[in-house]
Amino acid sequence: MWEVFENSVVRELVEAYRPVWSVSHALSLMGWDSETYMPKGGVGERALARADLFVLRRRLLLREELLRLLERAESQEGLNEYEAGVVRVLKREVRIARSLPEEFVFEFAKLREEATHAWRTARERDDFGLFKPYLERIVEYARRMADYLGWEGHPYNALLDLHEEGLTVGDVDRIFDSIVPTLRRALDRVLSTGSYPRSHSLESVEYEQGVMEAVNREVLDLLGFPWDRGRLDVSPHPFTISMGIGDVRITTRYEGRDFRHTLFAVIHEFGHALYELQIDERLKASPLAEGASLGVHESQSRFWENVVARSRSFIPLVTPILRKRLPFLKDYSDDDVYLYFNIVRPGLIRVEADELTYNFHIYLRYTLEKGLIEGSIKVDDLPELWNSMMEDLLGVRPKSYRDGVLQDIHWSHGSIGYFPTYTLGTVLSAQIKAAIDGSLGGLYRLVENGELDRVRTFLRENIHRYGSTYAPKELVERGLGEPLNPEYYNQYITEKFYRG
Amino acid sequence: MWEVFENSVVRELVEAYRPVWSVSHALSLMGWDSETYMPKGGVGERALARADLFVLRRRLLLREELLRLLERAESQEGLNEYEAGVVRVLKREVRIARSLPEEFVFEFAKLREEATHAWRTARERDDFGLFKPYLERIVEYARRMADYLGWEGHPYNALLDLHEEGLTVGDVDRIFDSIVPTLRRALDRVLSTGSYPRSHSLESVEYEQGVMEAVNREVLDLLGFPWDRGRLDVSPHPFTISMGIGDVRITTRYEGRDFRHTLFAVIHEFGHALYELQIDERLKASPLAEGASLGVHESQSRFWENVVARSRSFIPLVTPILRKRLPFLKDYSDDDVYLYFNIVRPGLIRVEADELTYNFHIYLRYTLEKGLIEGSIKVDDLPELWNSMMEDLLGVRPKSYRDGVLQDIHWSHGSIGYFPTYTLGTVLSAQIKAAIDGSLGGLYRLVENGELDRVRTFLRENIHRYGSTYAPKELVERGLGEPLNPEYYNQYITEKFYRG
Repeated sequence: MWEVFENSVVRELVEAYRPVWSVSHALSLMGWDSETYMPKGGVGERALARADLFVLRRRLLLREELLRLLERAESQEGLNEYEAGVVRVLKREVRIARSLPEEFVFEFAKLREEATHAWRTARERDDFGLFKPYLERIVEYARRMADYLGWEGHPYNALLDLHEEGLTVGDVDRIFDSIVPTLRRALDRVLSTGSYPRSHSLESVEYEQGVMEAVNREVLDLLGFPWDRGRLDVSPHPFTISMGIGDVRITTRYEGRDFRHTLFAVIHEFGHALYELQIDERLKASPLAEGASLGVHESQSRFWENVVARSRSFIPLVTPILRKRLPFLKDYSDDDVYLYFNIVRPGLIRVEADELTYNFHIYLRYTLEKGLIEGSIKVDDLPELWNSMMEDLLGVRPKSYRDGVLQDIHWSHGSIGYFPTYTLGTVLSAQIKAAIDGSLGGLYRLVENGELDRVRTFLRENIHRYGSTYAPKELVERGLGEPLNPEYYNQYITEKFYRG
Repeated sequence: MWEVFENSVVRELVEAYRPVWSVSHALSLMGWDSETYMPKGGVGERALARADLFVLRRRLLLREELLRLLERAESQEGLNEYEAGVVRVLKREVRIARSLPEEFVFEFAKLREEATHAWRTARERDDFGLFKPYLERIVEYARRMADYLGWEGHPYNALLDLHEEGLTVGDVDRIFDSIVPTLRRALDRVLSTGSYPRSHSLESVEYEQGVMEAVNREVLDLLGFPWDRGRLDVSPHPFTISMGIGDVRITTRYEGRDFRHTLFAVIHEFGHALYELQIDERLKASPLAEGASLGVHESQSRFWENVVARSRSFIPLVTPILRKRLPFLKDYSDDDVYLYFNIVRPGLIRVEADELTYNFHIYLRYTLEKGLIEGSIKVDDLPELWNSMMEDLLGVRPKSYRDGVLQDIHWSHGSIGYFPTYTLGTVLSAQIKAAIDGSLGGLYRLVENGELDRVRTFLRENIHRYGSTYAPKELVERGLGEPLNPEYYNQYITEKFYRG
């Protein structure tokens, strides 16, 4: 452990950080447990313990000893890449923690708790008015947070950077400017040629949870999930959580019908998990022992979910597993299954969106968030703006707040500046495909041959193993040979959806 | 929460203690997870995090702010019983933490880890020589610990007190002096009259884990386990762990045959769990939010396991559940099942011992531990002393170290002074029966009528609700109306086993 940290000051710094890591480990386990196995009665005490551990973590991070070591480490010469990474990551963490006053953090946490509660009620009753005052305060707090953090050019930049180191409005605009016309063109073609059915018989077929769980486990075997270092459990919303490089857990849910959903949730989370699992062992329990950013993480999940598992090449690998356990598939060919996995259908709900329409949902949220933070959009006008933009982008108009502005939990959590990392990840996932095409002679040939180990190795060597040694932009450039380039995504979308 | 702490200084003290509680909460969850769901690969990082959190907990407990508040609270006048309890518990915790130098704690922890490893190998190879040097050092450290903690009369007193507040060699001697002759007499009678078979056909009958788990769940329903505030899981060794009053979890194991074992493990752990679950809500997340001591805890588990569930009165409550799910019971009457649950058979292994022979095993360990700590017994002589004492007490002689001196993990864990709490609990469980007999007109009448709720209420009102408000001896006297009195146990044993 820690052989890569040779400089004695950096080593001391990493040691001083260890209790912070340990508290994070405990918080991760508490998070996992709260969503999976904790009995209902534990909610209250868990909330107390969690709040205390967050405060404790912050104090451990900002203790004099660590700050002094960080300062000394910064002035060391000839640091290797890992040592420099430790300094970068901790400077960033400390800067963020220090710029937000403890009182503000506390009040914002309280507001978010109340807002989440209000959002649930508002959504249940389909009454935006109940959520509106909370959202107004959330926006106000997010804006204040941007000011505390400091920003240049646009206050939203501070919130983007918080979720994705170095990401700016300029970057996100550039991505959407590039991909929206391509997505538009492909969607128009798909709709005008009627390539996809309005409904598919498999969407309503029911399955037994136990059977589907066995399918999911075999698919994870196929993908190469190391069961001695991970778990698959059930939770209301699928997620991945890392307790360290040797223990990364994923979850899925079982709706009881339309088996795509649970299957692709598992594959998506597998992508997140593989990233954490393939981080260099030597970075264990250090500030570098996690993925570089949300965007890079999302590139991994989307890569496996969409680029690999929704490809035609993947179908012959997975259908034997599906057919063995799901007898209702006997009348469906591989082409039928491929179609079922890839149906494009403009809809109101982001989490149900297909590969082609998904990013329109993000584009909408990004546009609105940016406007809210810069003050050009008022919370009052949000529902109408949402609806008309939805109609404009996808040709569908919400008939309720529930299907419109009240659909996501994120804003009630205070997460503003988070959605764009989904698109960043999606775009990056296609660039990874291009890089594998370039260096291993074709991703889909590997997939067809079942050589997924070579795909995992490519990801490990070029991205995963570094953990957060490099800032996301530098990681992409080093690992894939050039900066983020949305053209690969345009090409991927065109090849897959702009047919005939 | 905390309404019972009216004095403002005590309230501040309880607040200052909260982060300590929260770290303990996290440690409990980590302990539970390590034994139940954690993948193998997580062991290393979990050990790091755990070690850090133990250190953190100690530092949080000994921080200036808390110590100053404790000193101020101590000098307050007119504290109510709960407030006085907080002061007592924290003074004790602080005294123990302060008397053990951090370096000693660290070295002892390292030794214990090595010793546990050595014990496993020694046991596997049945070679006491491999464990001997470690046990010698363990004894030396335990003795040093006694000196650090301070003692009067006998150094073993310090170790007893560590595990059971206020317990002394005098107390334990008095208990054994009282009960050993009774147990002896009952055992001789049982053996001479041949009341129990040398083997029972049910001991070798196999069961399916899923079926037995369903049985265990129904038995927990019968006992009144609140599933919204607890769980039942599987682990190599059964245990109970509390994450707070609203979340108490128990485990059992499934050996695949002789279904008594898993069933009575569940009932035993239920007793522990019920104690934690019935602590007064107002003590939540405070220093009083756990059971008074190991001995009182064991009285609860033994009460439900032995006094209630091994009674003839309980049989008609549980056999309908058993017969419904275990078809192999169809040829066995209620009397047969009662016999199967209560077979007395002197044996070498403590954890397999029946109600009548169990305390001989503890008596042996107590005698040897006391001798080791006072220096009258050398580790060298331990195996022979063990064997001859075993022969003397139960008429059986180990033919291997594995079945003798190497059978328990406890010493390798550095736990010396712990075993006597098992006997204390057993003796106390009979005194609780007597108290219920006295105030509710007969425990077994309640059991026969299925009025287990009245039993639970009695335990809650007289013992559980106080948490650790009172020291164990005071709790017993207040809750049961008189100090610990082994005569109730003698009476119980005589009634149950000295028949005919």
